[in-house]
Amino acid sequence: MKSLHDLNQQLQRDNGSKIVLLVSDGIGGLPMEPGGKTELETANTPHLDALAARGTLGRSIPVSHGITVGSGPGHLGLFGYDPLEYDIGRGVLEGLGVDFDLGPNDVAIRGNFCTLDDAGNITDRRAGRIGNEIGIPLCEKLNQITIPGIEVFVRHVKEYRLVIVFRGEGLGGGVHDTDPQKTGVPPLKPVAKDNESDKTIDICNQFLAQAREILKEDAPANFLTLRGIAKRPDIPTYEEVYGLKSAAIAVYPMYRGLARLVGMDVLDAGQTLDDQMKRLEADWNNYDFFFIHFKYTDSTGEDGDFDGKVARIEELDAAIPKITALNPDVIIVTGDHSTPAKMKAHSWHPVPVLLTAENCRYDDQTTFGEKQCLSGGLGQFKAKYLMSLAMAHAGRFDKYGA
Amino acid sequence: MKSLHDLNQQLQRDNGSKIVLLVSDGIGGLPMEPGGKTELETANTPHLDALAARGTLGRSIPVSHGITVGSGPGHLGLFGYDPLEYDIGRGVLEGLGVDFDLGPNDVAIRGNFCTLDDAGNITDRRAGRIGNEIGIPLCEKLNQITIPGIEVFVRHVKEYRLVIVFRGEGLGGGVHDTDPQKTGVPPLKPVAKDNESDKTIDICNQFLAQAREILKEDAPANFLTLRGIAKRPDIPTYEEVYGLKSAAIAVYPMYRGLARLVGMDVLDAGQTLDDQMKRLEADWNNYDFFFIHFKYTDSTGEDGDFDGKVARIEELDAAIPKITALNPDVIIVTGDHSTPAKMKAHSWHPVPVLLTAENCRYDDQTTFGEKQCLSGGLGQFKAKYLMSLAMAHAGRFDKYGA
Repeated sequence: MKSLHDLNQQLQRDNGSKIVLLVSDGIGGLPMEPGGKTELETANTPHLDALAARGTLGRSIPVSHGITVGSGPGHLGLFGYDPLEYDIGRGVLEGLGVDFDLGPNDVAIRGNFCTLDDAGNITDRRAGRIGNEIGIPLCEKLNQITIPGIEVFVRHVKEYRLVIVFRGEGLGGGVHDTDPQKTGVPPLKPVAKDNESDKTIDICNQFLAQAREILKEDAPANFLTLRGIAKRPDIPTYEEVYGLKSAAIAVYPMYRGLARLVGMDVLDAGQTLDDQMKRLEADWNNYDFFFIHFKYTDSTGEDGDFDGKVARIEELDAAIPKITALNPDVIIVTGDHSTPAKMKAHSWHPVPVLLTAENCRYDDQTTFGEKQCLSGGLGQFKAKYLMSLAMAHAGRFDKYGA
Repeated sequence: MKSLHDLNQQLQRDNGSKIVLLVSDGIGGLPMEPGGKTELETANTPHLDALAARGTLGRSIPVSHGITVGSGPGHLGLFGYDPLEYDIGRGVLEGLGVDFDLGPNDVAIRGNFCTLDDAGNITDRRAGRIGNEIGIPLCEKLNQITIPGIEVFVRHVKEYRLVIVFRGEGLGGGVHDTDPQKTGVPPLKPVAKDNESDKTIDICNQFLAQAREILKEDAPANFLTLRGIAKRPDIPTYEEVYGLKSAAIAVYPMYRGLARLVGMDVLDAGQTLDDQMKRLEADWNNYDFFFIHFKYTDSTGEDGDFDGKVARIEELDAAIPKITALNPDVIIVTGDHSTPAKMKAHSWHPVPVLLTAENCRYDDQTTFGEKQCLSGGLGQFKAKYLMSLAMAHAGRFDKYGA
């Protein structure tokens, strides 16, 4: 059986067309009561509606029916990588989230500062939730640790959270967490899940021994636990799968990191949507594919701020003319998952998709909303097929078979 | 690649919510002529319609497009077990159908009484379709057969049909049918499909030798053929896959058996829908999940009795307030397949699905019917994903990935 990637790779051709994938994080929503409207249906979006009128709508299932995804699998799906096949470890996501450029020989680990009592038992798994003003200098101290034959990087993430990267040959990523998930017991010893990770265990032990000495006077943060120990997945690049020269224009490190993982160039996106649009214009001639990430439809959803999410959707809508002015061959607007303000969380609900291209099959929908997407021409499909639809509408696929 | 069950098992969490799955067997139908209404669309169903108005609709494909299923695969699909992965042998289904509690060491066989002539050739593969008054005492005679080291059970099913169970260590289920599917030839000898079933062949031969002796004066039922020889599938339980404490409230043995196969507790369901509702109320606090089975929408469909099926749907509708009064977190009403009265048979047509929960995405549908389901918010999906949707809407899944 031919895999999705084999098929894409076999059929790809370069016709010089351009694709813009605008990801409005968590854009899918829910009405607050039966018969009501979602955030997207409530928002006044003349430019998205104009795209809908000359495009086609649909809804994507991030991973599988009923499954709520985090940002990692959500974006992998949109990029056309099956999230059930490519597993991104928590340590890797933490590394991506602080803009650490993880290589294929790196093992990434999420660290949590914790408090040990005199007997060596954990009394607080989060070290009293210390602030950044304590966490940052402690990470700088740990970053001084040296282990022969290995490069060690320690980066602060937030409060009691940090990320540790070991770089070196022959390091496996199969190591169990050392966080016992309860207090009154000592941290667990690092234990390998496979033979390839024996050397990693040795490195972890050396690191922890030095860290214990360095942090011994720093209670409540007098030790740390290691979690989500992982290497980045061995993943084919965008260039290989699609033949696309691709760029990411994302403000937040996590999304820049996810784009880097699939081989996109990560451009300087500034801080605002306006900055992102200027970057798009400036680099328009340098790439075939642009991934633009807009975070605030997710964060307002997570906050349960229905009106705030509506306002953010309208902000995004106002930026659309900057994109259409460049005349991309394919424009896709969608999300990595739904984040209904009603639920204050990511959800499993299908994600609205809007695709505009010269050869899309119009579906009589003239506004962009969840209900309109139910009658959209693309139907309901798994997110991993979105890039195939993008490539097809861009004229970048040859025929399969004679 | 992570399987559906692995994923469900990984993500399950217990939040104390309750799910009711009401299966109206064969509920899907067809209009009798173009432009007409189906049985479900014809029925006056105020309570189902009220659920639709505050819920979301969809349609499920039992196994695959165009495939008509029997009750076994139909229910396995609804329970979230891919019917193409978990094969239930005909012998096992016959055993379940007479309420036989099949264990993991049991080999179940469907038997057909047949008629042999003096030369030992089959002259009638169904023994002149003898009635129960003949079949029942013959099965009682066969039930006296003893084979050293093995327990033998013989149960009458209906007319010329019976079920035989061999219980013992080391019995494989890979044995070909002995029914030659034609007359004028002797029954086939039992032949093994695999090495694990050699012992089963020996047991079959001993059983058949004794049966030939016992039945020799009982023409037209002077012998029997063995069919659908199988062990029950090795299947993870509902508790394992979903973490649900689950109960079945079903009147007919087949459906009780299918529920038992996936580890549900099988409750005393009485004889009527009213009995079933009383059982639901009485056991409401004892379980997380209730499977309620209603047979008569299928049997009226099989009879080609359009009006009768409409009446049965209305009977079911009248029971809905008993369920909603208990305030389940998720209510699902669907069928295991379609049984259009027009066809007098099971069919491949997608099955209407109605799901009601606090966080469902409303879809503007206010009645429950096949046409409304076409515009339903759940879209079209394989039945095996229904339980994932139930779990999600019940808040019983954690997020996948960070």
